[in-house]
Amino acid sequence: MRQHRFDKDIPFTEGEYLRRLALTRAAMDRAGIEVLLVTDPSNIAWLTGYDGWSFYVHQAALVFHDRDPVWWGRNQDTNGALRTVWMNDDRVIGYEDSYVQNPDKHPMEDLVLRLVGMGFPAPRLGVEMENYYFSARAYLALGEAAPEATLIDATGLVNWERGIKSDEEVVFMRRAARISEKIVDGLLERVEPGVPKNEIVAQIQHDAYTGADGHWGDYAAIVPLLPSGSDAAAPHLTWDGRPFRKGEATFFEISGCYRRYHAPLCRTIFLGEPPEIFRAAEAALIEGLEAGLEAARAGNRACDIAHALAAPLERAGIERGARCGYPIGLSYPPDWGERTVSLRTEDETVLQPGMTFHFMPGLWMSDWGLEITESILITEDGPAECFCDRPRKMFVKP
Amino acid sequence: MRQHRFDKDIPFTEGEYLRRLALTRAAMDRAGIEVLLVTDPSNIAWLTGYDGWSFYVHQAALVFHDRDPVWWGRNQDTNGALRTVWMNDDRVIGYEDSYVQNPDKHPMEDLVLRLVGMGFPAPRLGVEMENYYFSARAYLALGEAAPEATLIDATGLVNWERGIKSDEEVVFMRRAARISEKIVDGLLERVEPGVPKNEIVAQIQHDAYTGADGHWGDYAAIVPLLPSGSDAAAPHLTWDGRPFRKGEATFFEISGCYRRYHAPLCRTIFLGEPPEIFRAAEAALIEGLEAGLEAARAGNRACDIAHALAAPLERAGIERGARCGYPIGLSYPPDWGERTVSLRTEDETVLQPGMTFHFMPGLWMSDWGLEITESILITEDGPAECFCDRPRKMFVKP
Repeated sequence: MRQHRFDKDIPFTEGEYLRRLALTRAAMDRAGIEVLLVTDPSNIAWLTGYDGWSFYVHQAALVFHDRDPVWWGRNQDTNGALRTVWMNDDRVIGYEDSYVQNPDKHPMEDLVLRLVGMGFPAPRLGVEMENYYFSARAYLALGEAAPEATLIDATGLVNWERGIKSDEEVVFMRRAARISEKIVDGLLERVEPGVPKNEIVAQIQHDAYTGADGHWGDYAAIVPLLPSGSDAAAPHLTWDGRPFRKGEATFFEISGCYRRYHAPLCRTIFLGEPPEIFRAAEAALIEGLEAGLEAARAGNRACDIAHALAAPLERAGIERGARCGYPIGLSYPPDWGERTVSLRTEDETVLQPGMTFHFMPGLWMSDWGLEITESILITEDGPAECFCDRPRKMFVKP
Repeated sequence: MRQHRFDKDIPFTEGEYLRRLALTRAAMDRAGIEVLLVTDPSNIAWLTGYDGWSFYVHQAALVFHDRDPVWWGRNQDTNGALRTVWMNDDRVIGYEDSYVQNPDKHPMEDLVLRLVGMGFPAPRLGVEMENYYFSARAYLALGEAAPEATLIDATGLVNWERGIKSDEEVVFMRRAARISEKIVDGLLERVEPGVPKNEIVAQIQHDAYTGADGHWGDYAAIVPLLPSGSDAAAPHLTWDGRPFRKGEATFFEISGCYRRYHAPLCRTIFLGEPPEIFRAAEAALIEGLEAGLEAARAGNRACDIAHALAAPLERAGIERGARCGYPIGLSYPPDWGERTVSLRTEDETVLQPGMTFHFMPGLWMSDWGLEITESILITEDGPAECFCDRPRKMFVKP
C-alpha cells in the first residue's frame, strides 16, 4: 500500500483504517466475495473516511482484496471525497450528472463499466441487499448491466465488523456522551409548563452543535424525539409548536454526536406530581436497567440483557414486546443503530469487550410513555460501563 | 367514505387529502395498479398525514381504489399513526417487533398476509422500485411471499402527483420561506472571521426551529451545508469546528421547514475582498438566474430554464455540467427534492402553474464554489415567483 493522504483532516489513524480493511477483507473471504459494493453511508465512512450529505444519490465504496478501496459517486461529490477519504486521489471516481434521478439510465450502469475497466467483468460481487441506499431498482440495474457477475448478499457484512469499537472510536463516543449530558442538563433547566416544544428543540440542537469539552458537535442520525402526555405512547413523534403542560410526562430521546459517533441518552421529565402508575413503572424500569447492566458482561449473550430487564418489568405487570437495544457508533440518517445485534430474547450473540449498545427499554404504553436509557460499553470484566453519567431516573419538576 | 378523524391535528383539510387520493388513484389506473404500496415517507405523509421518524424500519401506506388507505408499520409506531393519519383507527395496522432488522424474517411477509386478509391474494401491486425505503431485499422478500402478485414499478408515481401544489401547500411553503429568510439574515449578522462553523450551525438550527411569523419550525430534510474556501468546491460537505477565515467564500445551503414543507435558499458570504474571478462568476450567475426566472413560465419546459441559465454562464467561461434544480415541497431525509423533474437540458417537462422548484445553479469549481439560489413558484402567467425575498447576490463582509 502506498503512502496515503493523512495530511488531510481524516478522523482516524492509518492503522485504524487498515484494521477495518483487514477485518472487512477477512469477512469477504469467508463469504466468497471478490469485490464488495458498500452502499451504506455509515459503512462507507467507516472504511474510507468519506463524510458528506450526498447519500441521497447513488454512491459506494468498492473494497478489493488486492488494492486500495475506491470511492465512487456523483461527479460533483468527488470533490468532497478527495477532501475526506484516506485513499489516494486516483481511487476517487465519479459518474456523470445525467445519471442522477433519471429513469432512462442508472448509475449502476456506470459502476459496471468501471468494474470491467478494473478487470472485473464477472466478479463475485457482494451487495448490501437490506439497506436504505441500495434500492430494488439499483439491484436490478446492476444485475442487468453485469449479467456475468454473481451477486452475493452482503447485508450487514461491514456492520458486523463495526461491532467491536477500537480505542480511537471509544474516544469519539465519549466526546459524544459529554454532548448528550449537556443536552439533558439543558432540558432539566429549561423544560417548564408553557414553553413551546420547538423552542426546546432549538436549544437542544444549539447545545448539540456547540459541543462540549472543547469538541464541536456533529448532527445526530435522528432528530430529537419528545412526545408528551398520551403522545408519548408513540416512540417516534418529533415536535410541533405546542407548549409543555403540567401533569404530563415527556420523554426526550436525544444523542450527542462527535464526528458521526453517537451516544444516545434518553430521559423523561414529569411536570407536576406523577401518578402512581409512573412511579411504579419508573421503579421497575430502573430495576430492570440495573439488572441489564449487570448482565451486560463479556461472555454473556444479548438475550441475557433482555431477560434481565424483563423480569422486574413483568413483576410490575409491564410487557414491552419490543427489543430493548441495539449497537451504536458511527452513523448517518435515518438510523443511529448498527442493525446487527438486537437486544431481545431471541438473540444469542455473545457480548465481547468493546461492543457498544444503546440499552433502550422504552416503555410505550397505550396512553403514556417513559424512557430512561443508557449508552453502554462492554468491558473486559465486570458489568457494562455507561458512557453518560446522569441520574438514572424520571425527573420530576413539581 | 366515512367521517374521518379531523378532530386530530392533521395538517390539511379532508378535501385536500381526497384530492391527493383521487390523483393517485387515477395514476394507478393508468398504470394498471390495483393496490399501491407506498414506501417513500414523503409520499406516505402526503397521502395519509403520517408524521414520525420511523422510516428507518419498513412501513408503508397501501392505496386502494375502493376503500380508504391503510397505514402499515411496526407495532410500536401504530400509536404515532393513530395520532397523525386522517383515516379511521381500523385502517392502522402493525407488525410484530421480531420482524425488525431480523435476517430470518422480513416485514414484507407480514404485509403479504395482510393483503391476503383484505382479499388481495394476487394483486397487481405497485412498488416504488427506486426509493431509499424499499430495499432490494424488501423487493425480493415481497416477491417470495406473494408469488401470485404482479409487481409493477411505481417509482415516482405519487411523486409526480405531488408536483403541482395546492393553495394549502403553498401557504406552508411560504411559512418555510419566512424561516429561510430569517436564517440567512442571521448568517449575515453572525458570520465573521474566527467564528467556528459549528457555532454558526447551532444558530442556524436555533433560528430554524424557533420559526418565524408565529409559526414553529420543523427539521429540514437536509442539514445545513456550509463549506468554505477550496472546500466549497464540494457541494455536500457539512461542518466541523474550524473557524471562518478572511479571504474565503462560504456558501450556505439551508432551508426553513414548516410541517415538512421546504423553501431552500442558498447564499454565499465572502469575508474580505473577493478576487475578480468571484465577481465575474457572481455577475454571470445572477444574469443566469434572472434569465432562468424569466423562462420559468407556465407552458415553457424544464429545459428552457436550464438553457436560459447556461447562456450567460457559458459566456463567462463557466460550464456547470450538473442539473440546476429540482421540485420541492413536502420531504423527509435524506433529500428535500421530489425526484421527478430535473432542471436540465434534456428534460422537456412542461411547466404548470403551482409547480415549485429549487432553482439551484450551484457553481462547484475545482477549488472554489458559489451558490445563489431561489425557491420558485410557477404562476398562471408571467415569470416565476420567488418564495424568498433576499438580495440575489454574493454578500461581502470586508
